[in-house]
Amino acid sequence: MKRAAILGSTGSVGRQTLEVIGAHRDKLSVCALSCHRNVGVLLEQAAKFGAETVICDSPIGACSVQTYEGQGAFERFAREGDYDILVVAVVGIAGLRPTLAALERGKTVCLANKETLVCGGDLVMRAVKRFGGRLLPIDSEHCAIHQCLKGNATKDIKRIILTASGGALRDMPLDRLPFATKREVLAHPNWDMGDKITVDCATMVNKGFEAIEAKYLFDVPEENIHILVHRQSVVHSMVQFTDNTYMAQLAAPDMRLPIQYALLYPERVSSLAVEVDFCATPLTFEQVDMARYPALSVVSEAAKAGSAMCVAVNAADEVAVGAFLDGHIALGRIHTILSRVASGFKGEVRDVQDVMRIDMEARRLAKEVIC
Amino acid sequence: MKRAAILGSTGSVGRQTLEVIGAHRDKLSVCALSCHRNVGVLLEQAAKFGAETVICDSPIGACSVQTYEGQGAFERFAREGDYDILVVAVVGIAGLRPTLAALERGKTVCLANKETLVCGGDLVMRAVKRFGGRLLPIDSEHCAIHQCLKGNATKDIKRIILTASGGALRDMPLDRLPFATKREVLAHPNWDMGDKITVDCATMVNKGFEAIEAKYLFDVPEENIHILVHRQSVVHSMVQFTDNTYMAQLAAPDMRLPIQYALLYPERVSSLAVEVDFCATPLTFEQVDMARYPALSVVSEAAKAGSAMCVAVNAADEVAVGAFLDGHIALGRIHTILSRVASGFKGEVRDVQDVMRIDMEARRLAKEVIC
Repeated sequence: MKRAAILGSTGSVGRQTLEVIGAHRDKLSVCALSCHRNVGVLLEQAAKFGAETVICDSPIGACSVQTYEGQGAFERFAREGDYDILVVAVVGIAGLRPTLAALERGKTVCLANKETLVCGGDLVMRAVKRFGGRLLPIDSEHCAIHQCLKGNATKDIKRIILTASGGALRDMPLDRLPFATKREVLAHPNWDMGDKITVDCATMVNKGFEAIEAKYLFDVPEENIHILVHRQSVVHSMVQFTDNTYMAQLAAPDMRLPIQYALLYPERVSSLAVEVDFCATPLTFEQVDMARYPALSVVSEAAKAGSAMCVAVNAADEVAVGAFLDGHIALGRIHTILSRVASGFKGEVRDVQDVMRIDMEARRLAKEVIC
Repeated sequence: MKRAAILGSTGSVGRQTLEVIGAHRDKLSVCALSCHRNVGVLLEQAAKFGAETVICDSPIGACSVQTYEGQGAFERFAREGDYDILVVAVVGIAGLRPTLAALERGKTVCLANKETLVCGGDLVMRAVKRFGGRLLPIDSEHCAIHQCLKGNATKDIKRIILTASGGALRDMPLDRLPFATKREVLAHPNWDMGDKITVDCATMVNKGFEAIEAKYLFDVPEENIHILVHRQSVVHSMVQFTDNTYMAQLAAPDMRLPIQYALLYPERVSSLAVEVDFCATPLTFEQVDMARYPALSVVSEAAKAGSAMCVAVNAADEVAVGAFLDGHIALGRIHTILSRVASGFKGEVRDVQDVMRIDMEARRLAKEVIC
């Protein structure tokens, strides 16, 4: 029985993580749950799954179980809590410190938080190597790559092919794109996810971040990570090897599959995902039309420039997407905001303080650019 | 440096095996070559690759290198020759005895000969287990499955999905099918192979045989092996796991890739195969239209009935395809010949003598049915 602590249990991935655990109560239990704001839901979840601990960065109030609350609560729990697996499903840079804290204890981290590797990839991978913990990605693409690499050596990788659905706006006429409405942007054709990431899919910023994550997770140089648009979201990514063999992982688009893979790794058991009907629709692949995804270019530039610029772009994107979702800016402004903010940041981050400092500074700049 | 002996070096797979070895002379050398009839080509190959031994089941004549000739020459060499890897690329039941002889010495066998597993699967797999040798398939489908299973457990397999091009006649109107000409049958859309196997592709007998081979190679029950028509021959097969994850191996249709995989296993190096252009054409999958492939039904029945019937169907197919290629029968008669011959054989083969006896008997019956 593995004891899982879920940071961000009230969000989309967190709720699906609980579904997976619910389906495998013989193998997994919940020891701790956390939220950012949704304390009511958190306490319901804790009661239902018998969690001994609840964590929240705002006050929880009177409660019958152990609590960690206030600023730094996630990290404090990660550093001293009693768990086997830490599922990091919080949104934003808040994922970095708890991830590092868990890895420094040699724990297993199942990572659904993109910002952690985008902003602190070097720091995180160094901690994995130094303390012998395990980092498993909760993300259909990285989960696919992880499986394609099973029994293969990193030195034999020629190229990683990240597949991308193309997002909600993949067929919108280019001239309408900058003015796409929130409703249009959030209508993702294949995946049901949170709002921030769904906007990032439409701009493909998300895919640029995934390329950065893949670089760190699988130790593959930036230039060997290619993106192909694959509308069906059935091939979740591929690895091309030196002999021009490609391994691909395919499945229904269902986050519960990568969640289960990470939670139970290396065990495979039946899952909540349905079978794929291969005869239903052809599998297609297209090159990315960069004119459609200008924000992706900014992220790719950042990936080449260094981790400081990655932190800045990530921060700027969070601010810009927030402003779009709040109705303050048009979609077409996101990439110009990213670009303006990014240009001021050079070099590599050295430590978490560095990440946090750049993050704050970039947010401030992004807000300035928006106003 | 691994020393490879190639049985059947003048055939299609044999020649491609020499190409692969020629491209990797730092890792592979040729110690022995063999042919059935083409002694002239054999001696040329031996001179070019510096083979110390030539093997032929007919007389070789005066020769500057060591020779094994006459009946049983392949098996004698397999039993006493000095080699690391035996590549069995001969056609027909002649592959069985040398394969067993090599495995009984604990050697590595790279098996391109279908009949060996179709007729003697139990005997072969028993020898692998008992003597600790290694059996690697030279065949795009089984090579794909082998790679999909890397790092995964047999118990986690839900289904093997064998892909099939559908052969040269996949779009011929059903009423014309029985009268397809030799030229039409041999015009395979994707693969350049020997005549016998190209006919077997058109009838999908080949795919039925591959399902039998997969059963033995990967220890998966017959009923968990499904066939899907995949016209592009890019996905070379898939494995569906218990969690409804599918792993697929993809590559250009080039036999040199499975040959290299088997010869250099577990090493991957650059190959003669080109990259796949995923954007060029969609990947499609279709259920098999059994009305189009009646001979496949006969093979599937045999697979369920037991190994004696498999031996009989294999022998009958060799005779029937030979008669078709010689212009003696129409294509549409093949499945009736297989069916008539198969019906007389029940149970499991016990040993090689059993296989040979049933093979002879079935050939005799097939010839009777044809006349």
